[in-house]
Amino acid sequence: MQQIYTIGIKTGQPAAMIDITKEVQKLVKESEVKQGICVVFVPHTTAGITINENADPDVVRDMTMEMNKIVPMKDNYNHMEGNSAAHIKASVMGFSETILIEDGRLLLGTWQGIYFMEYDGPRFRKVYVKILEG
Amino acid sequence: MQQIYTIGIKTGQPAAMIDITKEVQKLVKESEVKQGICVVFVPHTTAGITINENADPDVVRDMTMEMNKIVPMKDNYNHMEGNSAAHIKASVMGFSETILIEDGRLLLGTWQGIYFMEYDGPRFRKVYVKILEG
Amino acid sequence: MQQIYTIGIKTGQPAAMIDITKEVQKLVKESEVKQGICVVFVPHTTAGITINENADPDVVRDMTMEMNKIVPMKDNYNHMEGNSAAHIKASVMGFSETILIEDGRLLLGTWQGIYFMEYDGPRFRKVYVKILEG
Repeated sequence: MQQIYTIGIKTGQPAAMIDITKEVQKLVKESEVKQGICVVFVPHTTAGITINENADPDVVRDMTMEMNKIVPMKDNYNHMEGNSAAHIKASVMGFSETILIEDGRLLLGTWQGIYFMEYDGPRFRKVYVKILEG
Repeated sequence: MQQIYTIGIKTGQPAAMIDITKEVQKLVKESEVKQGICVVFVPHTTAGITINENADPDVVRDMTMEMNKIVPMKDNYNHMEGNSAAHIKASVMGFSETILIEDGRLLLGTWQGIYFMEYDGPRFRKVYVKILEG
Repeated sequence: MQQIYTIGIKTGQPAAMIDITKEVQKLVKESEVKQGICVVFVPHTTAGITINENADPDVVRDMTMEMNKIVPMKDNYNHMEGNSAAHIKASVMGFSETILIEDGRLLLGTWQGIYFMEYDGPRFRKVYVKILEG
């Protein structure tokens, strides 16, 4: 049986994409699991998680800009906290990623990184990581 | 080995977000699994699943309204059943959630609830729940 | 312990939805796992995966058309490769699906098919499939 790991994240902007691939990879190594799956879960409602390119920072910039166009910050929302757009963007991105483990490592594509998606920062956030052998 | 559980849902509106957290939590308890993952799967093509805020009902209203703006009901679709927007919204939200289990309970954030997303109701729907120990 | 399977896909269009249900089902059968979960993972950053209707091809056409409206190909993106829209659409659809296995078969809904979503083709692509017993 594997414990659940927690990664703490401090976000510095209202919207941000933070690459947590190395942190997750480190936990997979620490678990000593050689074959299985790794579930990364975000326990928030205005932040999500995705996978995307880890090479050109313009992809991060373009994705943040375009998500703000798709789900505008102001759009006659009722929710009094004023962060409905953040709730919607988080649901569109999703709250978990399931990644395969092979030979004790995350089986990601060459250009893939795991990104924590902040949509209502800056805040202190966390991510849970669970590793299942099999 | 754990059986697959089924939750039946009757939706009353064309679009609806139905909180199924308690039902899923009850099944986790029933399974007697203390550590593992819980996969909640929607076997439909015009309904999906997400996680979001369980406190202010305006979040539900805003999310439903905004998804109707992002994917309009009418937009020169070809599909003769007339529910293409529902198919697209379901894919955007996704058909499964994977949630961690700790000490026999779903490890959700304070404000997180699990929502069944009806986009082509009213209908009788179902959700499958599978619990894996590990 | 189960191996990780790879499905190779050759896409012929810039945007395409390719039904890979039969290929995944075949691997589940080959694995001889009767109860568990099947994780289908896309190791790319401009292609994703979803589940949707496998009956009327107009659903595929409508979904491709509408995703191009939601995330336009050109929209003042900075990324020099010119495929930012593909990166964003892939994240919106997601990079994995988790499907339940019962009696040695994928437990999909009547109308559900598993679709590989190409957003920057034509290319040679691959999909990883991992089957966990439990």
